[in-house]
Amino acid sequence: MRSVADQWLREVLLTLYRRSTATRAEIMAETGLHASSVSQAMRPLLRHGTILKVGDLESNGAGRPREVFSLNPDAVYFVSVDLEAQRIRFALLNFVGDIRYRWEEATGWEERLEVNKVFHGISMVLRNLDSRQLSRLLAVGISYPGMLDDQGRLTAFNLGLHDFPLLSELREKASAHRMDHLPIFIEPDRHSAVVAERWLGRARGYQNGLLLFVERGIGIGLFLDGKPVEGWRNMAGEIGHWKIEPGAEDPCGCGKRGCLEAIASSPSMIRQYLESTGQPSSNLSAFRITDVFEKARQGDPAASHVVERAAKAIGLALSYAINLLNPQIVILGGDLTSADDLFLPRIEREINQNGVPQLTRGIEIAMSALGLDMRLKGAGALAFRKSLADPALLRKMCSPVSLARGSVLPAT
Amino acid sequence: MRSVADQWLREVLLTLYRRSTATRAEIMAETGLHASSVSQAMRPLLRHGTILKVGDLESNGAGRPREVFSLNPDAVYFVSVDLEAQRIRFALLNFVGDIRYRWEEATGWEERLEVNKVFHGISMVLRNLDSRQLSRLLAVGISYPGMLDDQGRLTAFNLGLHDFPLLSELREKASAHRMDHLPIFIEPDRHSAVVAERWLGRARGYQNGLLLFVERGIGIGLFLDGKPVEGWRNMAGEIGHWKIEPGAEDPCGCGKRGCLEAIASSPSMIRQYLESTGQPSSNLSAFRITDVFEKARQGDPAASHVVERAAKAIGLALSYAINLLNPQIVILGGDLTSADDLFLPRIEREINQNGVPQLTRGIEIAMSALGLDMRLKGAGALAFRKSLADPALLRKMCSPVSLARGSVLPAT
Repeated sequence: MRSVADQWLREVLLTLYRRSTATRAEIMAETGLHASSVSQAMRPLLRHGTILKVGDLESNGAGRPREVFSLNPDAVYFVSVDLEAQRIRFALLNFVGDIRYRWEEATGWEERLEVNKVFHGISMVLRNLDSRQLSRLLAVGISYPGMLDDQGRLTAFNLGLHDFPLLSELREKASAHRMDHLPIFIEPDRHSAVVAERWLGRARGYQNGLLLFVERGIGIGLFLDGKPVEGWRNMAGEIGHWKIEPGAEDPCGCGKRGCLEAIASSPSMIRQYLESTGQPSSNLSAFRITDVFEKARQGDPAASHVVERAAKAIGLALSYAINLLNPQIVILGGDLTSADDLFLPRIEREINQNGVPQLTRGIEIAMSALGLDMRLKGAGALAFRKSLADPALLRKMCSPVSLARGSVLPAT
Repeated sequence: MRSVADQWLREVLLTLYRRSTATRAEIMAETGLHASSVSQAMRPLLRHGTILKVGDLESNGAGRPREVFSLNPDAVYFVSVDLEAQRIRFALLNFVGDIRYRWEEATGWEERLEVNKVFHGISMVLRNLDSRQLSRLLAVGISYPGMLDDQGRLTAFNLGLHDFPLLSELREKASAHRMDHLPIFIEPDRHSAVVAERWLGRARGYQNGLLLFVERGIGIGLFLDGKPVEGWRNMAGEIGHWKIEPGAEDPCGCGKRGCLEAIASSPSMIRQYLESTGQPSSNLSAFRITDVFEKARQGDPAASHVVERAAKAIGLALSYAINLLNPQIVILGGDLTSADDLFLPRIEREINQNGVPQLTRGIEIAMSALGLDMRLKGAGALAFRKSLADPALLRKMCSPVSLARGSVLPAT
């Protein structure tokens, strides 16, 4: 095993992750590796059960049938955590990125992040693995909203966090929960979302696109010329704090007024609905955003106004991003996926009204197929990619799998 | 010569262009080429006079002094053309990107592009070359504002052009002016500006930045992770048509109202000044933007208001771009460079008021050092890079130089 170049193993595994299935010829084409390098990398991976032969394609000529390979779904597991939504969401992902188990930790819209809940949730997920499976657990991926500075402090206005010492809290609490052996990779929510859509979702094959998701906050992920945009300090994507309605009074968690997030995030929409119907805003966490959407569908004027205003702000913001970046596809995700009937036509109207026709013509505006799982799947995919880069984790990934194929867990 | 790999020649020449001067060791470090490849490429280049030894550095150890090389300024020439400004601007550039001669063709703010003027201007530039120099003329680079579609038609609202058949006009008029032998490379103004700033200007060494220039229109060039952003159809950067003041009535060349360009481009600032002082707007082309700036400096209320409003709109737009892209540096160019005293503090104030502190903290806001030459130099640099990729032009670039060093033309 040691004799095979790690880089070849990485490229073969990454190709199979991104493509789900591939023939040797497809792996060669995608990695640019020679046939002999691909074969040398695949031999131990097949012998150890890290990858599986899952079928044969009929020959397209005189040659023998072409074998089709995939990752062994149960070769390794990842846990992913999404800090963005109303509840902290957890998933157990198998090696092919399927969600095998879910868990949520309740927290109100206005509650601050409690890192203990992160580890409690991880432990609830891990309960579902037997000891053999636990030994194949590779890493945890955490997707966070907001901005992490170079001291590991998180500022995420939508979570009420200002310079919150996320990294040191994670280290400390991991130790308290006896999880300090677990590699944890943390990524901005925009990157998780982009990677999920490009590897597993709607953006496969596109080179220039952006995806906007609305939940507790509003985030935007960008990929340009095929690469995710990270920015100088890995903080690109803070579109939620564009002062999109300069005169508006709506207060934002960032301390300013009129931000996109203060108008069009899910809790902001609920807040506006409560205010305009004279209900106490302390009801915020008792309400679900889908309730507001449902009322708008029934023609409730307050709910309709909230949706109209949010869609207008989102559409104007997207017209700016389109004029600036000339994407081929715009993907909408998060809570918007449960209200495409309400948002898609309104957002398209705003984009067409405000964008430059040369840039909006032919552009695709689409709903994410991954819905609320966008960031959970992306955090898992990023944990996989980071694990590839770590020699010890790569060796674990490629070590012999003793499990029979087929997990004891039901798919969810 | 043929025996030296073209790719090595390209990389050595590109490195010398971007660095001005370099030692062999620096060329190796920048290109990643082996010492023997660099030597093999440099031997014919030195023998033919394409590159020159321009000095020695003292040894930093026991070894012999390190030789310093540069391109031979007179090995080849480029003509560059900038369609963006009030006048069509032309330059003769030598091999190291210095402007050796300038020419302008008059055209009013509201006049449409006349392609005949482009070729007349080129011919006026070429008059300054003797026949030996003319034989070393490599290519013309044209920097255009707006968006070129895949049929070669240009839409540039600020030039009054909608689906203007730029490519076929250039072909036709080149023939009429007997210039069809001249290779012409055309590039969006944003790319010209970015390449100039990254290779020759203020953005050298930065990986994430953006530069905004104000002239007849407003353009923004982006470079992220060290690469210029082009977008799906090479149309990224249309920030001029962000509806930055949604309620504003100012008409824009694009047919909408309240666009950034309708408020803050140079002719828009002149127009507002004329309107608020009760002067006929037919005076537009008689006025220079520097007149408005000078009046604002003297405390004229109408001029001050125009500057204040434009700076506010530009600052808000930049705060959006900063939140979205997390650049390390923002460069301001074009007509703003003659009014940094008026614009820089106001734009910085708006960025700080509207941007997210985590993203604006530590960011550099700087004036372009290239001023109005940004796009002229960039169009020349891009013509150089495109010529490198063309085997026939590369051979011409590397053919023996018979001229003595030192041009007959005075530097300007």
